[in-house]
Amino acid sequence: MLGNFTYSNPTKLYFGKESLNGLNEELPKYGKNVLLIYGGGSIKKTGLYDEVIKILKDNNKEIFEDAGVMPNPTVEKLYEGCERARKGNVDFILAVGGGSVCDYAKAVSVSVYSEEDPWDKYFLRMEDVDNKIIPVGCVLTMVGTGSEMNGGSVITNHESKLKIGHVFGENVFPKFSIMNPVYTFTLPEYQMVAGFFDIMSHILEQYFSGEDDNTSDYLMEGLLKSLIHSSKIAVKNPEDYEARSNIMWTATWALNTLVAKGKSTDWMVHMIGQSVGAYTDATHGMTLAAVSIPYYKHIMPYGLAKFKRFAINVWDVNPEGKSDEQIANEGLECMEKWMKEIGLVMSIKELGATEDMLDGIAKGTFILEGGYKVLNHDEIVDILKESMKA
Amino acid sequence: MLGNFTYSNPTKLYFGKESLNGLNEELPKYGKNVLLIYGGGSIKKTGLYDEVIKILKDNNKEIFEDAGVMPNPTVEKLYEGCERARKGNVDFILAVGGGSVCDYAKAVSVSVYSEEDPWDKYFLRMEDVDNKIIPVGCVLTMVGTGSEMNGGSVITNHESKLKIGHVFGENVFPKFSIMNPVYTFTLPEYQMVAGFFDIMSHILEQYFSGEDDNTSDYLMEGLLKSLIHSSKIAVKNPEDYEARSNIMWTATWALNTLVAKGKSTDWMVHMIGQSVGAYTDATHGMTLAAVSIPYYKHIMPYGLAKFKRFAINVWDVNPEGKSDEQIANEGLECMEKWMKEIGLVMSIKELGATEDMLDGIAKGTFILEGGYKVLNHDEIVDILKESMKA
Repeated sequence: MLGNFTYSNPTKLYFGKESLNGLNEELPKYGKNVLLIYGGGSIKKTGLYDEVIKILKDNNKEIFEDAGVMPNPTVEKLYEGCERARKGNVDFILAVGGGSVCDYAKAVSVSVYSEEDPWDKYFLRMEDVDNKIIPVGCVLTMVGTGSEMNGGSVITNHESKLKIGHVFGENVFPKFSIMNPVYTFTLPEYQMVAGFFDIMSHILEQYFSGEDDNTSDYLMEGLLKSLIHSSKIAVKNPEDYEARSNIMWTATWALNTLVAKGKSTDWMVHMIGQSVGAYTDATHGMTLAAVSIPYYKHIMPYGLAKFKRFAINVWDVNPEGKSDEQIANEGLECMEKWMKEIGLVMSIKELGATEDMLDGIAKGTFILEGGYKVLNHDEIVDILKESMKA
Repeated sequence: MLGNFTYSNPTKLYFGKESLNGLNEELPKYGKNVLLIYGGGSIKKTGLYDEVIKILKDNNKEIFEDAGVMPNPTVEKLYEGCERARKGNVDFILAVGGGSVCDYAKAVSVSVYSEEDPWDKYFLRMEDVDNKIIPVGCVLTMVGTGSEMNGGSVITNHESKLKIGHVFGENVFPKFSIMNPVYTFTLPEYQMVAGFFDIMSHILEQYFSGEDDNTSDYLMEGLLKSLIHSSKIAVKNPEDYEARSNIMWTATWALNTLVAKGKSTDWMVHMIGQSVGAYTDATHGMTLAAVSIPYYKHIMPYGLAKFKRFAINVWDVNPEGKSDEQIANEGLECMEKWMKEIGLVMSIKELGATEDMLDGIAKGTFILEGGYKVLNHDEIVDILKESMKA
């Protein structure tokens, strides 16, 4: 049932092959000093870096750079970014990259003027922001996280083996995002399909919660079908613009608050996956992939009706003459088949996890209560063991 | 294919049984003088009027009233509303009612400071707004039009027999909308189901355009299935909160620009229906219902693949052993059956149309070119004749 909620999403999206021009509309709204945040430098190879620098200069901006944002941005990097932003007295942050770069840019934007240690305040304690926020804009080069149109930000603390995501309010959402599907063409296949599964997982974390025929469930079934359809095309031809553009658009709407309306939401796959990531530094989407099938097999009995619906509405399983369990199982089999077809990692072993890590990974997993079954420590260890065997 | 576009929707939505409290968050943002716009006075019977007045007074507002907005707001009423707004020197417009009241409020908001006749400038010539706009907020009591989260505004000129909708830009969108499904419970069944079909039609006008497997098509299939599911429950029990809330939410997302992304969009059912409305003053949703089946049967050969997909994905038609035409026809048969089941008017004759009007209705129909077939005058007359026979 749709309960009481508010919906408001202030991020403006510029989509398509010409979308970088949107920078010329947006940059004049902000002050002179811009912190340009990016990752490992692939944007220099593709030429995007030069294009962005030119537009920033054309708009008379003073540019301060913060490069080298890693796939799982660390708390040490966050301190470094804050220092740069303070030194440059920056008025605006432009993030050019994938979800990690956008996530990190939002973390910097709320942390620069924090009087307390931002890790403690905004990640460990997940407090609301009560200090000045530096506005952020994004140029997206990788899809999956939905970070371009939401308040999510994930930071990793290797010392304490914690990878924590804080979903900030709309004052932290990017002011705008530039979404050109062509920028995603050069991504290596491993990262590309990891991103596809990240999208799938975002939808499933919301879909597998609550019991009723909510409009959000129908919207999510549409997003899932579009993703499955286009992902099969994209793995065969990564430069298929139509497929990549539909996937990019699906990723945004999978996690910009819309489809969560009326849902309790689960997020346990992310909790387990993030803990795996803190131990292995593996690619986010792959950690989710490697724990999903064991997790969903484990919780299926507690949400059987929804798993049955998932099989029929998303995977076109023919229900005739089958028990609910059979139908639900067939749905997960279809999902597993699709995962293998597009080349996802099915075992945390392949991601570098070892038997001696499992207890720690389980201990580092935040237990949430929105899904069909509230897990205990032993159940998480069992799920991880199943993934080790896959 | 998703082309170049921007997406931005500034309307904040307050949803649910407690949503009227959102007024207390929003009203302080605007000046003292408020124009309260509403319709025939049903809000006085339900008590909503008193609640709204109390909140306005609690927020120290000076209230100016503009009551009596009719189901198809006229240009004469628009002039009257502008006069009242000018006299009160109003800072803010609060619309309490259904889509017509919201539409009309937006028309007033752009027209008050127009130096030219607003009918000529903003409806006949559909120009962009270049004068001061008075901000609008809505309290929705009827669903269907999506007016609560878009820039649409339809005004009727009886003298010239024209009913014209202008889709204004995001500067004209409501700043906020209050959406309490309970307010829709008291609506007479005729208006309720007309609203349901308005929603259906908004989705179909966008769905039946373009040829590719766009994410928007998948989202629309989700919205259609949610609407069909909940509408059947709502006609049996209009006070089923879950069904009415899902329908209210579906209506908003059917026409707030999202699902149009990547679509050429058709809107010919609305063009014909609006012309029928200008001649008969019939309820908007019923004019759409009465022309839809004849229209879609007429254009089906030009978009057969999509009508086949519609039948399978929306109406669960089993395609086995059938030709594309058979599958597509079965889809429309399912739709017709659903329409009759929920009590929609299937013939324009029932709405007061007579044979001698048909030529004029066809002449008053704006021909758009985004659908599968660009209609000529004789084809529109044929469609109207089919509806007369139904």
